[in-house]
Amino acid sequence: MATPIDFYFEFSSPYGYLASTQIEGLAAEFGRQVNWKPILLGPMFKTTGSAPLTEVPMKGEYSKRDFARSAMLHDIPYVQPHPFPIGTVSAARAVIYLQEHDSGKVADFIKRTYRAYFAEGKNISETGVVLAVADGLGIDARKLADGIGQDAIKQRLKQEIEAAMARGVFGSPFMFVDDEPFWGFDRFDHIRRWLERRGQERA
Amino acid sequence: MATPIDFYFEFSSPYGYLASTQIEGLAAEFGRQVNWKPILLGPMFKTTGSAPLTEVPMKGEYSKRDFARSAMLHDIPYVQPHPFPIGTVSAARAVIYLQEHDSGKVADFIKRTYRAYFAEGKNISETGVVLAVADGLGIDARKLADGIGQDAIKQRLKQEIEAAMARGVFGSPFMFVDDEPFWGFDRFDHIRRWLERRGQERA
Repeated sequence: MATPIDFYFEFSSPYGYLASTQIEGLAAEFGRQVNWKPILLGPMFKTTGSAPLTEVPMKGEYSKRDFARSAMLHDIPYVQPHPFPIGTVSAARAVIYLQEHDSGKVADFIKRTYRAYFAEGKNISETGVVLAVADGLGIDARKLADGIGQDAIKQRLKQEIEAAMARGVFGSPFMFVDDEPFWGFDRFDHIRRWLERRGQERA
Repeated sequence: MATPIDFYFEFSSPYGYLASTQIEGLAAEFGRQVNWKPILLGPMFKTTGSAPLTEVPMKGEYSKRDFARSAMLHDIPYVQPHPFPIGTVSAARAVIYLQEHDSGKVADFIKRTYRAYFAEGKNISETGVVLAVADGLGIDARKLADGIGQDAIKQRLKQEIEAAMARGVFGSPFMFVDDEPFWGFDRFDHIRRWLERRGQERA
């Protein structure tokens, strides 16, 4: 069985959202699963000296256009959210909690939460919005609310982010395929070409 | 006749090099020409607060891997040059000069100069190397050497860079298709999809 594709993502990342709608399909083309890895970009931007794209002079205007165009050209629903960017620590912690307690719901929770922010105008920085998404999927929202507040969950997310940075992750989405790193939704084409070549080498 | 694709590029840009090998083919698919626009990233990086990719913590290591992998996956010869990045003002001025005095040689000069740096290990920051590339194409190297030093040519390049920035250009390669901006070699797929959709809308 081929190893899963590690998919690192920040919930406030437009390209992370776009990628979240396609990563399972891409992985499945090559008989792979997806290993969902929530991160927060804040600590990473401190290390690389980066800022949210939309706040960079010149790049900011272009980026907003590129978010919407990328979505349009891939037929993915997208409405530029306001406020943007936002803090997403509750949503990220919720994923960590679900991975430990309700793992069958993880992928759907991630995709629905992303869609709530980037297609439905809901502010997922609010814990109540995150819980409502979970509730809609039949997840016990009271247990999840409790879980998000647990120190163990907070620590786990922190450790995951540190481990991601130690591995070289500095953006979202960020994928590893057999330890080969790929940064960005625009690298899906590379992942496909790279996996095709590996398949040919082995054949 | 459809308008040409404006192709802005810096000679020290790996993705600019990769794109230079494919832009004419992409344009031709849609019955378009290429309008080659040399720029220097230095003044643009000052505005956006950017630095050469390879000098950014974490991104630097990844970027070098991505340069080589992008080339490999598109079957383009690539050898990471040293020194890198370099100053490319002589090469950029040479393009401006040729556009005015030997316009039939412009495209070949650009592609050969890029290849000299990114595939053949030649340091194109040296004017002598630039002139040797030109000489190999049957360009009068003495006239070109004189042209590179002319104040009018220096001013033209400066004006071109200012005009590019006024238009929103902040990186390399940077393309405009009918005033729609596309940044990066990894947006060739977007250009193709975008032009296909325009074609369908008009049909």
